[in-house]
Amino acid sequence: MGIAVVGSIGLDTIQTPAGRVHEVLGGSAAYFSLAARHFMPVSVVAVVGDDFPREARALLDQPDVDLGGLEVQEGKTFRWEGVYSDDMNTRATIRTELNVFERFDPQLAQRTRSLRNVFLANIDPVLQRGVLEQLDRPRLVLADTMNYWIRNKRDELMETLKRVRILIINEEEAREVTGEALTHKAARAILSLGPETVVIKQGEHGAFLQGPEVFFTCPAYPIETVIDPTGAGDSFAGGFVGALARMTRVNDHNLRRAVVYGCVLASFAVEGFGVSGLAHANRDAILARAEAIADMTRFSLSDTARILR
Amino acid sequence: MGIAVVGSIGLDTIQTPAGRVHEVLGGSAAYFSLAARHFMPVSVVAVVGDDFPREARALLDQPDVDLGGLEVQEGKTFRWEGVYSDDMNTRATIRTELNVFERFDPQLAQRTRSLRNVFLANIDPVLQRGVLEQLDRPRLVLADTMNYWIRNKRDELMETLKRVRILIINEEEAREVTGEALTHKAARAILSLGPETVVIKQGEHGAFLQGPEVFFTCPAYPIETVIDPTGAGDSFAGGFVGALARMTRVNDHNLRRAVVYGCVLASFAVEGFGVSGLAHANRDAILARAEAIADMTRFSLSDTARILR
Repeated sequence: MGIAVVGSIGLDTIQTPAGRVHEVLGGSAAYFSLAARHFMPVSVVAVVGDDFPREARALLDQPDVDLGGLEVQEGKTFRWEGVYSDDMNTRATIRTELNVFERFDPQLAQRTRSLRNVFLANIDPVLQRGVLEQLDRPRLVLADTMNYWIRNKRDELMETLKRVRILIINEEEAREVTGEALTHKAARAILSLGPETVVIKQGEHGAFLQGPEVFFTCPAYPIETVIDPTGAGDSFAGGFVGALARMTRVNDHNLRRAVVYGCVLASFAVEGFGVSGLAHANRDAILARAEAIADMTRFSLSDTARILR
Repeated sequence: MGIAVVGSIGLDTIQTPAGRVHEVLGGSAAYFSLAARHFMPVSVVAVVGDDFPREARALLDQPDVDLGGLEVQEGKTFRWEGVYSDDMNTRATIRTELNVFERFDPQLAQRTRSLRNVFLANIDPVLQRGVLEQLDRPRLVLADTMNYWIRNKRDELMETLKRVRILIINEEEAREVTGEALTHKAARAILSLGPETVVIKQGEHGAFLQGPEVFFTCPAYPIETVIDPTGAGDSFAGGFVGALARMTRVNDHNLRRAVVYGCVLASFAVEGFGVSGLAHANRDAILARAEAIADMTRFSLSDTARILR
């Protein structure tokens, strides 16, 4: 029982109004794993170079994170450098060095092939499909993507989407995939591309989920001090996929709860540089934030008819 | 029993991706009144010129809207022209003609002075305070403002805010008033300026409310086709203030419900040009949308502890 995640592991250099860090552990598979492990064991399928620092590996090497599928190739690890705007709502990429990630061709070990849950993080849609083909009998197939693939590998992405059960995607990307300006209409349009459910991440406005018979919105947990937004989306995915995979059935009740856990894990991620914020997530803290979101959103319409004329 | 609203009434020329209308009824007091009247009678305090068309007046002249305080002055009515961007998230003002609104000096009739509820729509904060001074014993004082007053009459605005119980403001304006980038921190900063509660309007992302002991978020009702965003904020205020004024007590439960009604009335407003969308709001339709928002936001954390490791 567990979740396979296929994505990037890299070294990020990040500048935000809160400061700057140099070559810290990053990548979608890193954030995802460190968020999802609170719910279910995670098997990482990724590649790093032979320069990948021991300290970075140690951050990933948690009891519930299986690094058996973290391939070490000769060469340099994937590197990314970005600078966030003052309000942290936008970021500029200063530098992307794919390095060994450029030749990434995920090969799943036998014990990973039998996993029933898989998260295909933002990588080439051809590789995403290649991973699916290696799985024996996937039950819960979830994926993310980004504007690069939407623009440059649209046909391949469409093929992959046909085999994805739940797509987790940013608001802007949902608009770009579908051409719909209204986010909830973009969500419905995505359902016609294959996925039975879509989750749209809205940053500081939270997330919403559209399924065949469920439409659910959840606010972001209100953070006191945002230090670094990097990885918030992948941490959301980790919380969402982890919680959903752990719950037996994919139904209305569980999908809604899973979105709440996604928002909770994203909130920890932004409280520190790199993955350091996620280190403060633990059972009690996660539960407390989920309860806080419940309190922020509850209301009752009792007596309502009486107040209308 | 009723609500006094002081604001603008004008003729708007509006262009959106859905089309264009010429000199239709507009202004904050128009949208507010046509939204709030579903909960409580509204007395309009505003000014128009002697060119104000009979058809525009007829749209306002509803059983629950008292136009006794709608002054007709010699001269031209306030006019505004704006063009919305393709995604309707931004608009450019092409033309603003204050006309008789430039000399607006609200004088309340005796029966209006005794009203306990007042909404000070977005006008000069000096005039807002002048209206407050004319009220005998105001119970529920709510106000809106905009970036123009924040930038150009900041000190006067701060004086007014000391006497406002609930401020209803846009997200960008909340940031501008306080200098806080995070919306929920801007909300808390506003509470230190005088208001006991603040409601922050977030457009397609809904609204949230911060009071001394309540923090509540509500999503926007998902509209199929947005025709014209003009007046959404004032319609939100109409729904919020109308519902809250109608309910006896200003408490956690009622503040939350009032935000929901604000979101519901805003959703009608954007479905047609000018005030035409609000014409489709009626008791049953309002209740149905409030119930839909309840369904969109509900979740249960039952069994939650079990899914965390």
